[in-house]
Amino acid sequence: ATDSTPISKEEKDQIIMGKVEIVLNSLPMSGGDGPYSYSNNSHLQRRTASLLKETIDKLIMEKLDAKTLIYDSNTFHIADLGCATGPNTFFLVDDIIKSVETSLRSNSLKTTKPEFLVFFNDLPKNDFNTLFTSLPQDRSYFAVGVPGSFYGRVLHQSSVHIVVTVGATHWLSSVPKEVLVKDSNAWNKGKVHYSNAAEEVVKAYEEQFGRDMEKFLEARAREIVRGGLLFVGMCGIPQGMSFSNLADSIMYTSMADVLIQMQSEGLITEEQVDTFNIPIYSASPEEVTILVEKNDCFTVESMELMDPTTWLKRPMNEEDVRQWMVCIKATMGALFINHFGDHLLDDIFDRLTAKLIGLTEKVESSYREKVMLFFALKRK
Amino acid sequence: ATDSTPISKEEKDQIIMGKVEIVLNSLPMSGGDGPYSYSNNSHLQRRTASLLKETIDKLIMEKLDAKTLIYDSNTFHIADLGCATGPNTFFLVDDIIKSVETSLRSNSLKTTKPEFLVFFNDLPKNDFNTLFTSLPQDRSYFAVGVPGSFYGRVLHQSSVHIVVTVGATHWLSSVPKEVLVKDSNAWNKGKVHYSNAAEEVVKAYEEQFGRDMEKFLEARAREIVRGGLLFVGMCGIPQGMSFSNLADSIMYTSMADVLIQMQSEGLITEEQVDTFNIPIYSASPEEVTILVEKNDCFTVESMELMDPTTWLKRPMNEEDVRQWMVCIKATMGALFINHFGDHLLDDIFDRLTAKLIGLTEKVESSYREKVMLFFALKRK
Repeated sequence: ATDSTPISKEEKDQIIMGKVEIVLNSLPMSGGDGPYSYSNNSHLQRRTASLLKETIDKLIMEKLDAKTLIYDSNTFHIADLGCATGPNTFFLVDDIIKSVETSLRSNSLKTTKPEFLVFFNDLPKNDFNTLFTSLPQDRSYFAVGVPGSFYGRVLHQSSVHIVVTVGATHWLSSVPKEVLVKDSNAWNKGKVHYSNAAEEVVKAYEEQFGRDMEKFLEARAREIVRGGLLFVGMCGIPQGMSFSNLADSIMYTSMADVLIQMQSEGLITEEQVDTFNIPIYSASPEEVTILVEKNDCFTVESMELMDPTTWLKRPMNEEDVRQWMVCIKATMGALFINHFGDHLLDDIFDRLTAKLIGLTEKVESSYREKVMLFFALKRK
Repeated sequence: ATDSTPISKEEKDQIIMGKVEIVLNSLPMSGGDGPYSYSNNSHLQRRTASLLKETIDKLIMEKLDAKTLIYDSNTFHIADLGCATGPNTFFLVDDIIKSVETSLRSNSLKTTKPEFLVFFNDLPKNDFNTLFTSLPQDRSYFAVGVPGSFYGRVLHQSSVHIVVTVGATHWLSSVPKEVLVKDSNAWNKGKVHYSNAAEEVVKAYEEQFGRDMEKFLEARAREIVRGGLLFVGMCGIPQGMSFSNLADSIMYTSMADVLIQMQSEGLITEEQVDTFNIPIYSASPEEVTILVEKNDCFTVESMELMDPTTWLKRPMNEEDVRQWMVCIKATMGALFINHFGDHLLDDIFDRLTAKLIGLTEKVESSYREKVMLFFALKRK
């Protein structure tokens, strides 16, 4: 079940973590377990995870030959990439372990229960202390933390049977360089995202995603054993649809409005506004499929757009918008702190929340159906 | 290279970490990287590590068949148990990797360089955030953090080739219960350690160490592959010597004196003094040998007492005592905070340092030669 191909020079360079571009190192989810922490404000992510549970369970039952994979070692290895501080990662991992156990039972009359090892990965500045002290007491697996960017290698070769990553791979490894060049056509003046931006900005984001996903797949191809599965849940969009149709577009536009307003009040500089960009990208199934084919190490077992906003099926109200913003603050807060300083975070999000409450109807009527991309790949 | 024996009921219970006695969970080394942190005050430990370097290197060259061990996977796995927050653990791991690489080169004309995976283990409340953010940028190994008490299983079965633990296994899993029973002969009134204490107290510590080392060896026997090595450096003492001869004995007696003085000033209660015990035990080679033979899974490749105090060969001065106490504060501080509260820590250590400066000559003339126990075991 192992792969002993020698390490290439490029690979070795990747292993030397210092050489991997880890711009997002400085941008972890909000740590700790306080009222505005990620661990207490990630229930939207939790709902997404529930949505994925059934799909992942079905794929494990149908596509994974667990018995063969663990024949040598009787140890089953799972990795959650971009796990943040919990607790969502614990629910996700529990569900996967249950599915694997069911799969092992159904494949044979008598099996020795394997040991499970779970790799919890996130950026080195993630709050692993909170993650480790909140690990379920009654867990039946060995837990290890893995600090590092998943755009490079984080695990040793052929070391995992299932890799899962939910809500993480839409974060680019960095803001595309082009949008920060003042004289270029991609200079993203007065905007915080490629939504409603110049064609060159959209292209810069798209290409950055392409490069990042290429690195992501290369690294996973080395880490996942033959026959192992990779599950990815991330921001998605139907092929050909403009981002401006999406509810998130209203949020990004409002963010820019708030920042420009604060600039006019002298709280921040024009330069600060113009150089602030949120490195999040929504991918279509078609563009990911092309990248997977190019990589050539995986077969596509599932590739679909899902509707993550089941909680918004009823008419949206003010409280929904507030909740939404608390979650956004917990996930994107570090980005704002990093660029504008700690002292302005609350002000920015208070203004943003107020603005979006005024736009509740517009948000409600915008496209928010097939905006979660889910795909499952199998290592050839 | 793997062991697929089914997990016993007892083993399974051990894996469920909640059931493992982790009293020391609340007693990590001082975190962060401030002036009084472990990471900035562990140079004595560093000297100990240097002392071990040569011995460990020699043992790896002579006793380890690295090539056979990694034949299947081309991945070499190392664990440092009780790694704290660095940087000592990084030096130690680097030295071991270099030795293994030399051993692999010398064993063959041509070898594929393996990938190295290092498990950094410590209690869940250890400051893993500091450990992860201070990992060497140019490291050539994959690093994972493993939260959990090494008196139970922390790694999956047959998962490591070399396990090392320096300065950790003299920490008992808990204060022996007997010394906290007011009516028993082992009630350790007015003392903080078994040094100069009643015979029953010494016996309680000794038995606690025996039970802990038994669990330690059982867990490692499951985790280390056949042919793998276990290196342990910890507080030691020649068989039959009374602890009262040791320099540390003067420190423990002074600690008790300081606490009793503070009690007389009304700063702490009698109850607090009488129930405070430092769960550190110095073992003799002979008693460890008996425990290893009882466990029956390892051969003894080395078992010796070393002299860790090379830095004290010259006449001790006031500054030496200060340095010593800064190190002790960084390693034992949490124990005092836990029992007496944060606010008294500085006061306690200021008094202790002053007291010991007055006893410099006595410390110098006490026994401090063969007080580090080092042993190397090989998994049968």
